[in-house]
Amino acid sequence: MTPNTVEKTPVTLLGLGAMGTALARAWLAAGHPLTVWNRTPARAEALAAEGARVAGSAAGAVAANTLVVVCLLDDASVEEALAGTDLTGRDLVNLTTSTPAQARARAAWARERGARYLDGGIMAVPPMIGVPEAGGYVFYSGSPELFERHRETLGVPAGTTYVGEDAGFAALHDVALLSAMYGMFAGAAHAFALIRKEDIDPGALAPLLADWLVAMAPAVHQTADHLRSGDYTRGVVSSLAMQVAGTPTFLDTAEQQGVSPELLSPYFELMRRRLAEGSGEEDLTGVIDLLVR
Amino acid sequence: MTPNTVEKTPVTLLGLGAMGTALARAWLAAGHPLTVWNRTPARAEALAAEGARVAGSAAGAVAANTLVVVCLLDDASVEEALAGTDLTGRDLVNLTTSTPAQARARAAWARERGARYLDGGIMAVPPMIGVPEAGGYVFYSGSPELFERHRETLGVPAGTTYVGEDAGFAALHDVALLSAMYGMFAGAAHAFALIRKEDIDPGALAPLLADWLVAMAPAVHQTADHLRSGDYTRGVVSSLAMQVAGTPTFLDTAEQQGVSPELLSPYFELMRRRLAEGSGEEDLTGVIDLLVR
Repeated sequence: MTPNTVEKTPVTLLGLGAMGTALARAWLAAGHPLTVWNRTPARAEALAAEGARVAGSAAGAVAANTLVVVCLLDDASVEEALAGTDLTGRDLVNLTTSTPAQARARAAWARERGARYLDGGIMAVPPMIGVPEAGGYVFYSGSPELFERHRETLGVPAGTTYVGEDAGFAALHDVALLSAMYGMFAGAAHAFALIRKEDIDPGALAPLLADWLVAMAPAVHQTADHLRSGDYTRGVVSSLAMQVAGTPTFLDTAEQQGVSPELLSPYFELMRRRLAEGSGEEDLTGVIDLLVR
Repeated sequence: MTPNTVEKTPVTLLGLGAMGTALARAWLAAGHPLTVWNRTPARAEALAAEGARVAGSAAGAVAANTLVVVCLLDDASVEEALAGTDLTGRDLVNLTTSTPAQARARAAWARERGARYLDGGIMAVPPMIGVPEAGGYVFYSGSPELFERHRETLGVPAGTTYVGEDAGFAALHDVALLSAMYGMFAGAAHAFALIRKEDIDPGALAPLLADWLVAMAPAVHQTADHLRSGDYTRGVVSSLAMQVAGTPTFLDTAEQQGVSPELLSPYFELMRRRLAEGSGEEDLTGVIDLLVR
């Protein structure tokens, strides 16, 4: 610490997996007093050498500071770790991956125990933590006062995006974005599979694929406009009818290249179902309505 | 035409759907003499007023110029339109959507009739044609001499990307990129479905979603590196084992939000199958091998 360091908010951190360890290093590097606890102590010892205080128990760690950040394997681990601790007056920030329902239940659970609660969904992998230019960030939802109070401290490991008082919204945003990403990865897997047996360098396809996906990603703004207005035909360039008419080319190409259509056909099937409802003048937005029960 | 216009290559264009009409307007605007033909003549008449010569038959249109561009509904329409024409000595550029096998067969068919052949796959929608800043382009494959000879003319409506002598490669690249795009759209549809019943503005989710997809699209470069090297563990940050362990959160969230998992679960199922093969240290590249028969 340099002599003119302003006093930084002390942080307690429970959980030192790859992500927890990255968070710990970011706070230590920024000069925050840090108390850590991990179920198996070996990981904590490495951080002790870097200036962390190692608590002998989760209860001890929670007692050490007002701001308690939890980053464990899953919601059951949170329950287990915090079971014997006194949360009264604590500012509990739960960065453990969870579903919206788990986050809401954990928020109520924390309030019953006298704690304020903020839930977080981390949009980054550990190497992006503490590296602002990597663009990682964390969705937060729950107590707005708690978010404002600790905004600066929470902003040390990664950017912060507050998405509402409903404690489940951070998890919901996290899952929504990652689900979309898996869809994109599934599409890219199909694309690479199509050229697998051809004399085409995957390294030559990759930049074309990346540029195309980047160019097409803003289509979600039109989808949002459709959902807000309820008019799924606004500004449509390629109609659903035209796009469904094009699907045999995609399926026939997969067949010719010996590629299973299993990652594409469920979406095409929903396009066909929506078209059959008489929505040929729309684009693809109507598929969303078919997904929601 | 301005008096100092350099003489531009005359073009014959068969097919005046939305895309053909956009192509025609781009060549007319750039001062290329243009002969058009369309099965139903009404669409040609509008272009006549803009300077196009309208041929009374496909045979007449093909006879008018060496460079013959075809942009019809499908490969069967190409067969039908060109059946009674003399292709000897023609430079045939086929921009009709087709599968790689159709493109290869059409290339052989054209060569038998004394024509050079270039196949194209258009990565743009009609409003992007003739608008360079829109970033649309056309994949070309087939005769490299033909591509070089007409590169400038072909570059008028949109950018050009030549991908090899195999006449099927343009269609294969086209289908690969569009397939990946549909995967991304499927993922985005799932994301919007997840928030459908919540008090979350789709217009607020859209920029988060677009930015995240743009940030994650470059992951395809690592996939390409894996495929080239055959080592699917290089530079892996989130292992397949970790990612499979995370899938219940996605499926449970879908269930909680009343959203069908049908667009996500096929990819997750392939992830699980690959993990079961003992590939937990890889990332997601191995899914591609499971798709290829």
